[in-house]
Amino acid sequence: MSSRRFIALGTASQVPTRERNHNGYFLRWDAEGFLFDPGEGTQRQMIFADVTASQITKIFITHFHGDHCLGLSGVLQRISLDRVPHDVQIFYPSSGEKYLDNLTNSSIYYNVANIEKVPLAKEGVVFRSADYVIESYKLEHSAESWGYRIKENDSVTLLPEKLEEFGIRGRDAGKLKAEGEIEIGGKTISVNQCGIEKRGQSFAFVMDTRLCANAFRLAKDVDVLVCESTYLQAETAEAISHGHLTAAQAAQIASDSNANLLVLTHFSQRYQNIQDFVTEAKKIHYNSIAVKDGDFVDFPKRK
Amino acid sequence: MSSRRFIALGTASQVPTRERNHNGYFLRWDAEGFLFDPGEGTQRQMIFADVTASQITKIFITHFHGDHCLGLSGVLQRISLDRVPHDVQIFYPSSGEKYLDNLTNSSIYYNVANIEKVPLAKEGVVFRSADYVIESYKLEHSAESWGYRIKENDSVTLLPEKLEEFGIRGRDAGKLKAEGEIEIGGKTISVNQCGIEKRGQSFAFVMDTRLCANAFRLAKDVDVLVCESTYLQAETAEAISHGHLTAAQAAQIASDSNANLLVLTHFSQRYQNIQDFVTEAKKIHYNSIAVKDGDFVDFPKRK
Repeated sequence: MSSRRFIALGTASQVPTRERNHNGYFLRWDAEGFLFDPGEGTQRQMIFADVTASQITKIFITHFHGDHCLGLSGVLQRISLDRVPHDVQIFYPSSGEKYLDNLTNSSIYYNVANIEKVPLAKEGVVFRSADYVIESYKLEHSAESWGYRIKENDSVTLLPEKLEEFGIRGRDAGKLKAEGEIEIGGKTISVNQCGIEKRGQSFAFVMDTRLCANAFRLAKDVDVLVCESTYLQAETAEAISHGHLTAAQAAQIASDSNANLLVLTHFSQRYQNIQDFVTEAKKIHYNSIAVKDGDFVDFPKRK
Repeated sequence: MSSRRFIALGTASQVPTRERNHNGYFLRWDAEGFLFDPGEGTQRQMIFADVTASQITKIFITHFHGDHCLGLSGVLQRISLDRVPHDVQIFYPSSGEKYLDNLTNSSIYYNVANIEKVPLAKEGVVFRSADYVIESYKLEHSAESWGYRIKENDSVTLLPEKLEEFGIRGRDAGKLKAEGEIEIGGKTISVNQCGIEKRGQSFAFVMDTRLCANAFRLAKDVDVLVCESTYLQAETAEAISHGHLTAAQAAQIASDSNANLLVLTHFSQRYQNIQDFVTEAKKIHYNSIAVKDGDFVDFPKRK
């Protein structure tokens, strides 16, 4: 199993169907587990997808429409029931504080979970670890909606022949990588002189929104862009009026932003055949797929 | 299709499993639709069972543990989205007012539903129509829990030969049935002299509880008793300590209360094979079944 995998737990917009559960997505990212927009039934969809409550380390809510958050109560209660020992952070639009509180207190349970609330009011970097950065920007929807972007830090792979050339040995190599430069025999050697750059991987989660500048910003150069496409192009006017995207518009975001793989989801109940979304998107951005509940996407090994 | 049908939308206690959704039950009762204890995912389970939001006329919550109410938000939002024109009443323990409010306001939606709250504080008759009576009594659980009982009024089927004998014709027959008696030629004739009694059908819904007097009271003489049986007899001590029933105890309630069909549900996730519950119950109350998600029970035609 890849160490970075995106799993579609549910792919329905607004209301579930026989084939599609309410939204819900899990991103395994090394030792982290990111749960996005848990709609109603996410607790059970996790079981079908072999995702456990203890794998969740962070939860991201784009906005407080029911199909993006009604499953939060069950997930939080499951985290508590399973005695998950670590902290779980929840990122959400601060304007939805009331809904978060209600979802957290919607039924009687013995709450022993370690939940840290991270209300979002300011766009930009919302979390930074030693290895990656999470940014969030506002989108344009009928309710206040925020997209997310995860970017692994770029790093350098040191080349043995270059280290040899500059006379860097043992612990000095580690020091060079950590500090970016090192002094050897009175000369300052930078890490870039001794290795090749290794680009960090990145992921963007864009829903719900109509076309807006921040959708493109979130998607910029990402390896995987998960994007709502509630409608097909024929319903563009309806998409705009409801603050949603068509498959063609999602593909436009992917293409113009130089994203690699576009993952389409969040389909209106009116559509039976999600292959139509792929066909439409591929004309604009060839590397496009549409996911069914339970589908997953493994990240390629980093170059 | 029978005009009275009980449908198991979900049959899991506490947490869903691959096979079982959280609790949820729908009782079609002539023109009424009674939804009991909608756990998470009930909105979608209704789709699988061909139950629509517009069929719901009353909702009953026994108690506010998540597996009995987390689906309420989705159901209420669906009632609103589908523009259900009629009033829908929600019966629930008044002590859970806060949870009902939070479930009703757990996400952003345009609420146009006509919801009437019926908080329960006093045991006994909680609703009465021209045709039936609903009673509710407190059970014994770790959270305040109320059971429900629906009893159709007894009535009389008039016998043509008797009407002929007493000289009752035309509209007088209707008057006799409506008023219980009629004066013909100076003599008072009671409805019982002209017909045979037709016993009203009845239904009881008992969960979650340990054995208690009100469980027997609710089940008294009912045609269909839906009863929790979280555990098998081997776990009786655990059942008692958690305020739950075993299959054997559910059967004892059915048998001692002279219930007809016992419907077992609300199974702990530890059990794979629900046939074991039937085997255990049948030793005490032969007319017992266990339901899987989607199973239904049609009421027999009234005698």
